[in-house]
Amino acid sequence: MPRTIQFTSKLGFASRLNRRATASQLAALGREFHRRSWAFGTSGNYSAVLSRNPLHLLITSSGLDKSTLTESGFLEIDGQGNILAGKGNPSAEAALHLTVARMREAAGCILHTHSVWNTLLSEQYADQGGIAVSGYEMLKGLEGVRSHKHREWLPIFENDQDLRALAQKVEVELERDSAAHGFLLAGHGLYTWGEDLAQARRHVEILEFLLEVVSRRELGSQQPPILQGA
Amino acid sequence: MPRTIQFTSKLGFASRLNRRATASQLAALGREFHRRSWAFGTSGNYSAVLSRNPLHLLITSSGLDKSTLTESGFLEIDGQGNILAGKGNPSAEAALHLTVARMREAAGCILHTHSVWNTLLSEQYADQGGIAVSGYEMLKGLEGVRSHKHREWLPIFENDQDLRALAQKVEVELERDSAAHGFLLAGHGLYTWGEDLAQARRHVEILEFLLEVVSRRELGSQQPPILQGA
Amino acid sequence: MPRTIQFTSKLGFASRLNRRATASQLAALGREFHRRSWAFGTSGNYSAVLSRNPLHLLITSSGLDKSTLTESGFLEIDGQGNILAGKGNPSAEAALHLTVARMREAAGCILHTHSVWNTLLSEQYADQGGIAVSGYEMLKGLEGVRSHKHREWLPIFENDQDLRALAQKVEVELERDSAAHGFLLAGHGLYTWGEDLAQARRHVEILEFLLEVVSRRELGSQQPPILQGA
Amino acid sequence: MPRTIQFTSKLGFASRLNRRATASQLAALGREFHRRSWAFGTSGNYSAVLSRNPLHLLITSSGLDKSTLTESGFLEIDGQGNILAGKGNPSAEAALHLTVARMREAAGCILHTHSVWNTLLSEQYADQGGIAVSGYEMLKGLEGVRSHKHREWLPIFENDQDLRALAQKVEVELERDSAAHGFLLAGHGLYTWGEDLAQARRHVEILEFLLEVVSRRELGSQQPPILQGA
Repeated sequence: MPRTIQFTSKLGFASRLNRRATASQLAALGREFHRRSWAFGTSGNYSAVLSRNPLHLLITSSGLDKSTLTESGFLEIDGQGNILAGKGNPSAEAALHLTVARMREAAGCILHTHSVWNTLLSEQYADQGGIAVSGYEMLKGLEGVRSHKHREWLPIFENDQDLRALAQKVEVELERDSAAHGFLLAGHGLYTWGEDLAQARRHVEILEFLLEVVSRRELGSQQPPILQGA
Repeated sequence: MPRTIQFTSKLGFASRLNRRATASQLAALGREFHRRSWAFGTSGNYSAVLSRNPLHLLITSSGLDKSTLTESGFLEIDGQGNILAGKGNPSAEAALHLTVARMREAAGCILHTHSVWNTLLSEQYADQGGIAVSGYEMLKGLEGVRSHKHREWLPIFENDQDLRALAQKVEVELERDSAAHGFLLAGHGLYTWGEDLAQARRHVEILEFLLEVVSRRELGSQQPPILQGA
Repeated sequence: MPRTIQFTSKLGFASRLNRRATASQLAALGREFHRRSWAFGTSGNYSAVLSRNPLHLLITSSGLDKSTLTESGFLEIDGQGNILAGKGNPSAEAALHLTVARMREAAGCILHTHSVWNTLLSEQYADQGGIAVSGYEMLKGLEGVRSHKHREWLPIFENDQDLRALAQKVEVELERDSAAHGFLLAGHGLYTWGEDLAQARRHVEILEFLLEVVSRRELGSQQPPILQGA
Repeated sequence: MPRTIQFTSKLGFASRLNRRATASQLAALGREFHRRSWAFGTSGNYSAVLSRNPLHLLITSSGLDKSTLTESGFLEIDGQGNILAGKGNPSAEAALHLTVARMREAAGCILHTHSVWNTLLSEQYADQGGIAVSGYEMLKGLEGVRSHKHREWLPIFENDQDLRALAQKVEVELERDSAAHGFLLAGHGLYTWGEDLAQARRHVEILEFLLEVVSRRELGSQQPPILQGA
């Protein structure tokens, strides 16, 4: 983790910052996530909401190695995915970022990671449509959660190279479950968000921690899984 | 781990130091623990005894991200949890820190971590009320332990958002077992302490190491657990 | 990982660079791989194609500790393994590097790692002659792969101290399967390559990630392995 | 790992260096091993042979936290364990270092680590008196080993707080098996050595790697262990 980066603890909406400062912060976070083994190679996508009316998103260009991400590795796109500024092309997964931004009005930053544990667990529980996590104090690191008894339902979607089709399923689920803090794509990774970069990064930490705990618990156990479908 | 931080090896009681220097050392330790995956997000609480008569504690403010903890992230509180100096609010878990400080007169520093291994093991053995760890040379890193044959009993308490109720149970147990070097909250984390920051930090290392060893041994094994209740 | 190293994202063929700059980049990568636990001790070999007609390879000298690799730790050899420049002797595994360089004309850089996971999995599936990996989004980090449904077949060869005999088997397999992005030596390690250093390094990350995922999935499971022979 | 420390690749016997430079190198290695989770808290002991006739050893003082080890944390002792220079007391384990130094004339540096994997495996196979490791290319990182078919027998001794009694058992075994590169103490840790600091450090890396591979293979497996007694 970069020792000297101080994430402003309350950015508020990224829209209040200028594009360059936001890109610089997201790039630092991208390099940090690579070092923490959460987004090897070209995997991982990171975005911030630059404005809401109309919706403008700052998002990683497609195909960049995340270990060397810099502020020039970001594009500004509109709500239809058209490029407004920057070089390169948005990832096909921009459709998911736009869907999250639309369905979660408070979201100022959206992060997508590919860790070993989220890959393993999302694959293993894909048939159940999701994972319920409950009973862990760490859940209180998710915004608005007040007790370890909270039951966090992480939906899992089948992975699909047709991102528009996938985005529609995500939209339906985020509409249905207004409390969800994130979701998984099977064999692929985690999406989560927060009102600013610091909160979204915290949600990644919390969810990656919980997915590791649940994976180790379940993979080590020969008993029927404790996890239950929705 | 911060490369350049030299923890004074014998601080003696933190009360001999001024508040600012202590906060700076605890903040460095907090960032270190985050980097070592022992306190992600806002999890983890760290305190030092500033004075004993009356009891004054320096303790982390509630809700701060531990990756960016600085000396301004600490409060001075009295034995009833009233704020004497600093910004923000003490965590509800301050009640546990105060209980430990009262029940262990030699304690100058109290640390609380949320690791994957302490979460897993505290959950798995909650029904037994604790874990006995014995037979490991690493036990000798706990103050006063002279042999690997030492049997360390780590009590496990059910997690509870009513911290006053929880603190009372902890008080009873620490009174009953004067030899305990720490305790676990089920699905939550580890509390340990030491006469100064260096010793408390060492106790975290030793206990986290032992919890990882026991977890890997038990999770990998299909035999009945070797661990026994008190 | 070295914080300040910027791998030129498109080196093109290493032949376009001078030998010294290439050795410096490969040495930095070698130290990085040691830190990432992918090549402890003297294990690991790294090479870059300096020219194609005739074939000249820059390759690590034998027997060097990879944690302290510098640009003086490389030799220039010709297509028969004769030393053209540099001190020390090429590893016996130079025969494998030369074979890969000949069989993959687009390869500008060839990397060989010894990780815990690639050691474990290559040993466990040696009898099947290889491992098929499919269904993971991370596969798209391999050059030319467009879908998580891609089936990557990683051949596994029995380890052999007769590297010329081993190189012949590798040659036959790379001829037969023009799509392979790498191969394993049982109980030994991974070979992969890329058109330049950045792409080869990305392929190491992707394949090491996938081997860890598959190892954890299979070692934790008591069900018959999902993996299938060719 | 310290980024800037260059271990002289061939120190030859430490006796050729002055005491201070050797202590500085061993201290850097001690901090590195702490960061790599091989010697938490006060665990771990490191020594170098300063002279052979008479035998003088530079060795860590007892009870120091290895994360902050400096050159002042070492003592010079003679072959009977008497202190010749330095502050503090030698660890009781100095008896084992002296035994290794006497039984292995080529040893210039002796290292003792307490990792999770060496703790687990030494406990699990204590009844068999040792572990045979064979079939891994990484074995060639041990001095003098030329093939992955080499069978390395790592003796395991029951842990004992009577270090003189333990040292006698070690002496008998090192006399009997002149090929051993190291040994384990059950539930305690690994001892290995090398002709200089670099070689001894490499042996730690190689053996820790192999112990992790074997532990993961055996703990994940429900089949009868492949490992065999001597």
